[in-house]
Amino acid sequence: MPSYTAPTRDMQFILHDVLNVSEQDTPGYSELDREFTSAVLEEAGKISSEVLSPLNPVGDSEGCVLENGVVRTPKGFKAAFDQVREGGWTALDLPEEYGGQNMPYVLGTAVGEMFSGANQAFTMYQGLTHGAASAILVHGSDQQKETYLPKMFSCEWTGTMNLTEPHCGTDLGLMRTKAEPQEDGSYLLTGQKIFISSGEHDMADNIVHLVLAKIPGGPDGIKGVSLFIVPKFIVKDDGSLGDRNGVTCGKIEEKMGIHGNSTCVMNYDGATGWLLGEEHKGMRAMFTMMNEARIGVGMQGLAQAEVAYQNALAYAKDRLQGRAVTGTENPNGPADPLIVHPDIRRSLMDQKSFIEGARAFMLWGAELIDRSHRGEDADAEGLISLMTPVIKGFLTDEGYDMTVLAQQVYGGHGYIEEWGMSQFTRDARIAMIYEGANGVQALDLVGRKLAQDSGKHVMAFFEMIKTFLKENEGDEALKKDFLDPLKAASKDLQASAMFFMQNGMKNPNAALAGSYDFMHLFGHVCLGLMWARMAKASHAALEAGTTDEAFYKTKLATGRFYMKRRLPATALHLARIESGAEPVMELDAEAF
Amino acid sequence: MPSYTAPTRDMQFILHDVLNVSEQDTPGYSELDREFTSAVLEEAGKISSEVLSPLNPVGDSEGCVLENGVVRTPKGFKAAFDQVREGGWTALDLPEEYGGQNMPYVLGTAVGEMFSGANQAFTMYQGLTHGAASAILVHGSDQQKETYLPKMFSCEWTGTMNLTEPHCGTDLGLMRTKAEPQEDGSYLLTGQKIFISSGEHDMADNIVHLVLAKIPGGPDGIKGVSLFIVPKFIVKDDGSLGDRNGVTCGKIEEKMGIHGNSTCVMNYDGATGWLLGEEHKGMRAMFTMMNEARIGVGMQGLAQAEVAYQNALAYAKDRLQGRAVTGTENPNGPADPLIVHPDIRRSLMDQKSFIEGARAFMLWGAELIDRSHRGEDADAEGLISLMTPVIKGFLTDEGYDMTVLAQQVYGGHGYIEEWGMSQFTRDARIAMIYEGANGVQALDLVGRKLAQDSGKHVMAFFEMIKTFLKENEGDEALKKDFLDPLKAASKDLQASAMFFMQNGMKNPNAALAGSYDFMHLFGHVCLGLMWARMAKASHAALEAGTTDEAFYKTKLATGRFYMKRRLPATALHLARIESGAEPVMELDAEAF
Repeated sequence: MPSYTAPTRDMQFILHDVLNVSEQDTPGYSELDREFTSAVLEEAGKISSEVLSPLNPVGDSEGCVLENGVVRTPKGFKAAFDQVREGGWTALDLPEEYGGQNMPYVLGTAVGEMFSGANQAFTMYQGLTHGAASAILVHGSDQQKETYLPKMFSCEWTGTMNLTEPHCGTDLGLMRTKAEPQEDGSYLLTGQKIFISSGEHDMADNIVHLVLAKIPGGPDGIKGVSLFIVPKFIVKDDGSLGDRNGVTCGKIEEKMGIHGNSTCVMNYDGATGWLLGEEHKGMRAMFTMMNEARIGVGMQGLAQAEVAYQNALAYAKDRLQGRAVTGTENPNGPADPLIVHPDIRRSLMDQKSFIEGARAFMLWGAELIDRSHRGEDADAEGLISLMTPVIKGFLTDEGYDMTVLAQQVYGGHGYIEEWGMSQFTRDARIAMIYEGANGVQALDLVGRKLAQDSGKHVMAFFEMIKTFLKENEGDEALKKDFLDPLKAASKDLQASAMFFMQNGMKNPNAALAGSYDFMHLFGHVCLGLMWARMAKASHAALEAGTTDEAFYKTKLATGRFYMKRRLPATALHLARIESGAEPVMELDAEAF
Repeated sequence: MPSYTAPTRDMQFILHDVLNVSEQDTPGYSELDREFTSAVLEEAGKISSEVLSPLNPVGDSEGCVLENGVVRTPKGFKAAFDQVREGGWTALDLPEEYGGQNMPYVLGTAVGEMFSGANQAFTMYQGLTHGAASAILVHGSDQQKETYLPKMFSCEWTGTMNLTEPHCGTDLGLMRTKAEPQEDGSYLLTGQKIFISSGEHDMADNIVHLVLAKIPGGPDGIKGVSLFIVPKFIVKDDGSLGDRNGVTCGKIEEKMGIHGNSTCVMNYDGATGWLLGEEHKGMRAMFTMMNEARIGVGMQGLAQAEVAYQNALAYAKDRLQGRAVTGTENPNGPADPLIVHPDIRRSLMDQKSFIEGARAFMLWGAELIDRSHRGEDADAEGLISLMTPVIKGFLTDEGYDMTVLAQQVYGGHGYIEEWGMSQFTRDARIAMIYEGANGVQALDLVGRKLAQDSGKHVMAFFEMIKTFLKENEGDEALKKDFLDPLKAASKDLQASAMFFMQNGMKNPNAALAGSYDFMHLFGHVCLGLMWARMAKASHAALEAGTTDEAFYKTKLATGRFYMKRRLPATALHLARIESGAEPVMELDAEAF
């Protein structure tokens, strides 16, 4: 059975050696000293390894079962959910006012990676609730906040997001679900929503659905969409639960993975709902959830790559097969362990160098969110808004590829469900799709974010890299292995942006045909930057005479691998981008 | 439910416009005129679409069930197997002497792609039988051939390959299964084999297992391995079936995919077997099966990519979502079809340009096998031996990636089993693993095939490209779009081979650390060559005033896409290769 060990050492390195969180002036960051974050991460790691990880294969093989309108979650899920709830893990980074722990998002993100890595399907129940609660927190009335938030923060009640309908996913303007206004100010909702994660289950007393619907007579298309709170049980004035609302689970989907999470068809048959935020401004409110959710999904990509890598590594050290080409390394055994073989190393290093770079990228992104929300830093907000599709798209695509590499290390055993490696790839697959398929992320990046505020944020990104390179140009230890490759990669990114500017105005397809490559190019540059920053921090630690020399030397070697073997992908992406729209758009649809 | 349409038009193009099969002097090729191959392909296509394809999801959802030692295949499999048998499809390219149809392998390969694309799990029962029969044909005694081949050619009896044991896959020298010689010349086999595809089932009267085992007292390791014929039922002298042999299925594995094929643990408890070929020369005999099987597996990668693409394309034309950025294309509908969006195009073109290039590569490889076997052409044999790991490794890796792209076109529906796209990726995944995991293919390519016969075959490959470029250098229509990119890509391949030569002698790891990239680089150059040849053939057809202009123009546009957007990957692979052993091998195993 696969196992999960929380990467606390690496997280501490990023938080303290690279991001220097406790020295920053973002509100709440001064508390984040090494001892405090270590205590939180160790405790979260323990729950992840001991409680959530053993339930991961159980969730996969049992799945969720719908019987007489009730969804039964896999054996052990409810007890584990209670344990997570009792440990106070469900609202780590939410405000104290409604029962949260008010810790920075950066710490919540680190904990989130652990939970997701140990058990993605399970953690989604909590993750969706967090997203729904955040939307109510930002857009809800005081009464709505008082009614729902304390129970949602504690996950006594869970939450969902209801966007997709059978005929529309990305294009929500086609939506048909109706919300008819009632005299008491409530609405009656009618329609069908699909792909509703955690839509119905047996782990919470109530489920608070956030539902997009159209109020009849409103504007056409996406501008006529409003957001509603539709609880499974109506909440009475005294906060107790009243009548069962007219919302039911019609079906649980059979999926490729995340079987432990109930993906429901939800039927709204005159269900009572209350407007959240303003009429016809539903998309704005929904995006509060979506942006957070997108970053959380990027984290899932990284998290599945991490757990798959851990198990591939253990197998590579344990499984004896063949002899090292440079001479026997395990003379007392019948063969050498897999890890002696160069191609197994190549695979493990691809995984390791992605994961550690991605983790730094992820936590840097979370830090920007804290600077934006807690520190009200508009530049940070612009930058994270720009990078959100990159975090979502690049980390889930690459994260998935890494689970495939990890599975491959197991040879035939990787294909057998019993060994657990298949589950990691099957679970990781969804992250490329939900919360906006990765092609939509690329479109968001190139079609919207690049030009946002007159391109201010992407210019700031380039400026930041330039400044970093300039500040460190005298550092000979960094130059050849880290700064030069970063410079080359960021030149490729700039050339791509330039190509879009020069050609995209005349023909938008010239930019959009390269959008997917641009997202990946951008991702590589971000990881290159993170590796350069991590290398700098590692040199500093080694020069300061650290007692953990092995850790920092390994970090440097892993970074050099990334710069030499992964980062040169930027040139290929640039070549694809610069080939423009024609190769992509030339054929008529009928010619395919 | 997904569907399958046989790509007969494209196959005819490759066979006749590109390979000009009927004009070649390879024995049997003169019969392969357009009418004949069309008749065979149309008929095979019909069975694929109408019989095999509808059973594909059935096989996936039902799987195989072991009860009281008997394996039940999914509903409909047996009737379909009878139909395939009765149609004479099981020994298309095997000799007439034992009931085969004696058609060239190139035609068998085209038909094989159809069957595999329509239903991979089903087609494996027949494919394994073909491989086992081929090994008996080459290495068996006259009596063995007479006993087994007629029934195996007709698939009344099926065959298996038994290599892997729980503790050894790639490293077969560690094998423990024993074969004790008996006085009557037979052997008693004892041991356990795992991952035995089609190991036990209810579709044939007998199952002929080919089993690798060690005769006690023989040489250690791989040099002491012999190959045995172990039938499920002992065949009596009159050809009728006698006693049940001591071989049983202990378990069916739960796998990620190919559920319709029974992957068995086979227990040999003093089972009677007969030596096939010479004592201790089992690997040589097994490789007869393995090489054929490896090419067949490469074909599976292509076949799954094709069927996944067909369904993605249909969805992209049908699903209405969003509007084209350059202006509405479907004004009477609520939205435009997905195919208007550049990033959907990018994905479809990636798939289409890979598939068509891969099909040409595959059929060219099959033609080389015919030249080698039927024409006794040693150069062709050397070339296909060199390219076998490329066909297996590159086509299955890329084929898998294409199924992932196709699944992505479906958005959320791609993740729901009901739509069938998940099955294509789950089924395609095994092809990267079995018959030698792709890392082992890369090792075979760089560690063995490159230097084979003093590097003669790789030199011949480079020479062939040089000749092609020279022969066509005056062709302005080809030059910029096809010849120049092919030249650049083949330079990258030559530079890689040069790097290995210069560095691999001193340090074998310097070559092996780049082996995987070399396999992919090689694959891209092969597809680049095929696209150049296809472009040449298309220009010729257009100049000759073809009535099917649209087909050839589409072919050229698809080829240009490959050259512009896919082939530049060679530079990235070269960069990775030239970074050498150090980034890959630097860390101690403990440092991971």
